Amino acid sequence: MSTLRGNCLMGQSGGPTAVINASICGVIQEAMRHPEIAGIYGAQHGILGVLREDLIDLRQEDPEEIELLKSTPAAALGSIRHKLPDPGDDTSEYERIFQVFEAHSIRYFFYAGGNDSMDSINKISDYAAKKGYELRAVGVPKTVDNDLAGIDHCPGYGSVAKHIAAITMGVGLDMQSVHLTDPVIVMEVMGRNAGWMTASSALARRREGAAPNLIYVPEAPWNRERFLEDVRRTHAKYGWCFIAVSVGTKDESGEHLASQGGEFAADACGHGQLGGVGPFLDGLIRGELGLKTRPIRMGPAERIAMHFASLTDRDEAYRLGAFAVQSAVSGVTAKMASLKRVSNDPYQCELTLTDLEVVANEERLIPRGWLNDVGNDVTQEFLDYARPLIQGEVPTPIENGLPRYARLRRVVVPKKLRAWGTS
Amino acid sequence: MSTLRGNCLMGQSGGPTAVINASICGVIQEAMRHPEIAGIYGAQHGILGVLREDLIDLRQEDPEEIELLKSTPAAALGSIRHKLPDPGDDTSEYERIFQVFEAHSIRYFFYAGGNDSMDSINKISDYAAKKGYELRAVGVPKTVDNDLAGIDHCPGYGSVAKHIAAITMGVGLDMQSVHLTDPVIVMEVMGRNAGWMTASSALARRREGAAPNLIYVPEAPWNRERFLEDVRRTHAKYGWCFIAVSVGTKDESGEHLASQGGEFAADACGHGQLGGVGPFLDGLIRGELGLKTRPIRMGPAERIAMHFASLTDRDEAYRLGAFAVQSAVSGVTAKMASLKRVSNDPYQCELTLTDLEVVANEERLIPRGWLNDVGNDVTQEFLDYARPLIQGEVPTPIENGLPRYARLRRVVVPKKLRAWGTS
Repeated sequence: MSTLRGNCLMGQSGGPTAVINASICGVIQEAMRHPEIAGIYGAQHGILGVLREDLIDLRQEDPEEIELLKSTPAAALGSIRHKLPDPGDDTSEYERIFQVFEAHSIRYFFYAGGNDSMDSINKISDYAAKKGYELRAVGVPKTVDNDLAGIDHCPGYGSVAKHIAAITMGVGLDMQSVHLTDPVIVMEVMGRNAGWMTASSALARRREGAAPNLIYVPEAPWNRERFLEDVRRTHAKYGWCFIAVSVGTKDESGEHLASQGGEFAADACGHGQLGGVGPFLDGLIRGELGLKTRPIRMGPAERIAMHFASLTDRDEAYRLGAFAVQSAVSGVTAKMASLKRVSNDPYQCELTLTDLEVVANEERLIPRGWLNDVGNDVTQEFLDYARPLIQGEVPTPIENGLPRYARLRRVVVPKKLRAWGTS
Repeated sequence: MSTLRGNCLMGQSGGPTAVINASICGVIQEAMRHPEIAGIYGAQHGILGVLREDLIDLRQEDPEEIELLKSTPAAALGSIRHKLPDPGDDTSEYERIFQVFEAHSIRYFFYAGGNDSMDSINKISDYAAKKGYELRAVGVPKTVDNDLAGIDHCPGYGSVAKHIAAITMGVGLDMQSVHLTDPVIVMEVMGRNAGWMTASSALARRREGAAPNLIYVPEAPWNRERFLEDVRRTHAKYGWCFIAVSVGTKDESGEHLASQGGEFAADACGHGQLGGVGPFLDGLIRGELGLKTRPIRMGPAERIAMHFASLTDRDEAYRLGAFAVQSAVSGVTAKMASLKRVSNDPYQCELTLTDLEVVANEERLIPRGWLNDVGNDVTQEFLDYARPLIQGEVPTPIENGLPRYARLRRVVVPKKLRAWGTS
């Protein structure tokens, strides 16, 4: 494979995680080790930054701030949700992307994201091949949802799992303390189709009866009568009940709980999005069982907890970023850097490459066998899978009592093209 | 003052904090240093455990587990909300309490809690004096709300402030990352009458424009038009808006936002308690400004974050517990162990004693001068007050990726009386 000289561009896409910046740090620091890579640029807000020619020069950043990206949550380059059109229908965005690539001599493109991002890289790679533009494009996986196919687990998941488990453990103790007055907790967890995040609460349970007592995920159909009986029985046995529920949990007819319940309907509560599952279950428990509930809805606070992130997750995120660069430099394109689990005890994952089509078009759900038969808990298989991912704590530099996160200068790369959308 | 020999009893009351167990640890470890204290007992679920004669023998616990109480959140002895009746109206509970005290030779009583707990100690002390029962009863302050009078700040507050600020900082970065699609965060924070917890989010703001952008607390009347203009202007200026709001925020007529808004009324959303302020503001922002919002409602998850608790707070909580015992042994009764700030830089607090009446009957709110004129932010005075309280991190022992919290054996003290309520 011949050496390809040129500049490199990277971007971030989709919902942030605690460690997506660690991946970007891996890309930057690895890119700096390869003399064939000249400029190292970041696209602000992912593919939108490419379209807008909104690029920053990462070689202008203080190396210490780049190093701090290893312990900085959220997406330092800015993120976006944008699905590229089918190039058969509309080539305008692709034409613009390659104008920007040509104008800035971009030969290496790294995109950190989930399914849609891998779909974008795939389409851009195909378009490059069709145009005869030499480009090495490699995806770096990230998502708190852990729903990517073709990878053992997704960077970002271990940290959110550790955070959710820690919160479950603490709130569980709190609930035990006050259960004579407030016996039921309903914790709503992100996850539209996949219940991985909600399931991770189970890692908190070290003793029988400890939180979480009941777990409901989209993979197991929810039944109203069984649910009420679950809560009633749990409360009768322990005096409390901690429920972890995915926002995307559905009943047996496939309808989201979040959109059910007449007076609990989405509009009435001012929620235009999924997320009403907590109020719905609260209402059911109060109304049908007469128990007092306390709702928890962490929302985006779930996914940014660098103050208790997983070192295993952080290190894998970094290594995948660096591996994407190594792969591209050695000639790889149109692949996603991936993890293959070699052993559980001791835990070991190998770096591999996965086809983008697999990642772009599939969604990995919790295997049904990793949930119990009645669908209100996980099995040992899930715990064995998830436990290694939450090991270790990321050392976070502290300034004045709070984390010291990276501060980028964001030196703008001078634009060479007309503004996007003008002619 | 003559030496008083006897057993000691302690209890916890009200909502748990990250460090109320550190106070109990201080009481236990200090009690063990004094030969005049024989039995060291814990009442399970506070005053209810006294009434039920539901006591555990803390000398039977493993000293290492007692030591772990320093880094264990929630209330290890169990908590309760129970206000003792006016002894002029009904003496039955007092008679029972002193039967239990006599049966178990209780001469030292330590109660960790807020206003109601200090009221309880006060009434019990008065009753003891009236009966001629020699008792040394000292209160140990705790509350995340920071609303106790007669003390510079309340143990529990520094840790919840640190946690809320860390979450604000992380979610703020997340919001900046994704602000092109999700520009507004509404974070609902506990606090019915006092906005101390919500205000602590301001500690996260290290740069102009960083989260939190707007802060609404019960101490400053909320106005609908001004609020909408605040959000509109903030969004226009930065492209995002992070709002921290207390559940107890009220409008200019004194009505809680949580119970307003027609279709946002408490019942319609299934909330029988305060807490609908988030959905109410979400609805307003979406409806009036057409901006997409993301709600956060941490609820009890705010107050148990030992995985990022303040070492300053933890150490003060411990010292107040130990000081309560030292004071009682030296003859003090009917007081609360307290903190008096001597200096801000370097931060220094002295241990003092406060009259229980002051604590029992007053509620300390944020001084109006510590909020800005328009009532949507704090001033430098607040920041100078709160910043020292979040310094340092509590080292938390980890087991298998998650905190290792104390596990008590809870060896029951044999009952000597009939069950409470039987005759």
